[in-house]
Amino acid sequence: MKYLLLVAHGSRREASNEEVRELAAKMNSMEHDFDAVGSAFLELAEPLIPDGIRQAIASGAKEVTVLPYFLSAGRHVVTDVPAEVDSVRPEFPKITINLAPYLGSAEHIPGILLDQANQVNG
Amino acid sequence: MKYLLLVAHGSRREASNEEVRELAAKMNSMEHDFDAVGSAFLELAEPLIPDGIRQAIASGAKEVTVLPYFLSAGRHVVTDVPAEVDSVRPEFPKITINLAPYLGSAEHIPGILLDQANQVNG
Repeated sequence: MKYLLLVAHGSRREASNEEVRELAAKMNSMEHDFDAVGSAFLELAEPLIPDGIRQAIASGAKEVTVLPYFLSAGRHVVTDVPAEVDSVRPEFPKITINLAPYLGSAEHIPGILLDQANQVNG
Repeated sequence: MKYLLLVAHGSRREASNEEVRELAAKMNSMEHDFDAVGSAFLELAEPLIPDGIRQAIASGAKEVTVLPYFLSAGRHVVTDVPAEVDSVRPEFPKITINLAPYLGSAEHIPGILLDQANQVNG
């Protein structure tokens, strides 16, 4: 069983965390190559990344792909998220845990931004 | 002349700000309906949003479209960016200043995230 875990920063504003959970649910409802899609947070919201990974494995995942929902290759993407992922690897030596490239690195982002701009361009 | 101003939060890490400037340059190099694409920041980096708008108009823009490079409809998107934009409107009563929907609201984001995940999915 393959599990996709969307990982966001987490916010004191619960509506922002809920937006991330709804995004994961939306992704889950689309056609994709995983058996389930869930979400977790670096801080300020639950589940935190290690618990999100543990829950995925408890639900039967043999492979977990962690996908950083971040725009910039800052400290969170470069250091913090990988460290949280690495912190649980020793618990599950037989489980494959992948780290996907962060959203901001997607090649389609510039085109999507231009599409957004055209929605209000007179 | 139509100017597109990509607006990001701004970071103490200058490489992150440079990433935003390079993204705007990338967009500018693509086919689009604007005469120029530039960038500005809510805080911590330059130009700040009001100065970014002023510079666009000084360079000849008659219409400026502000595009929030943010993932979540939090305080920055809902309150702070619109307030910065509104703060300069009285200086330019004859210029149209549009506010585009923020990146996170783009309908293609879920599909792009699934694409990113598939890059490492075994």
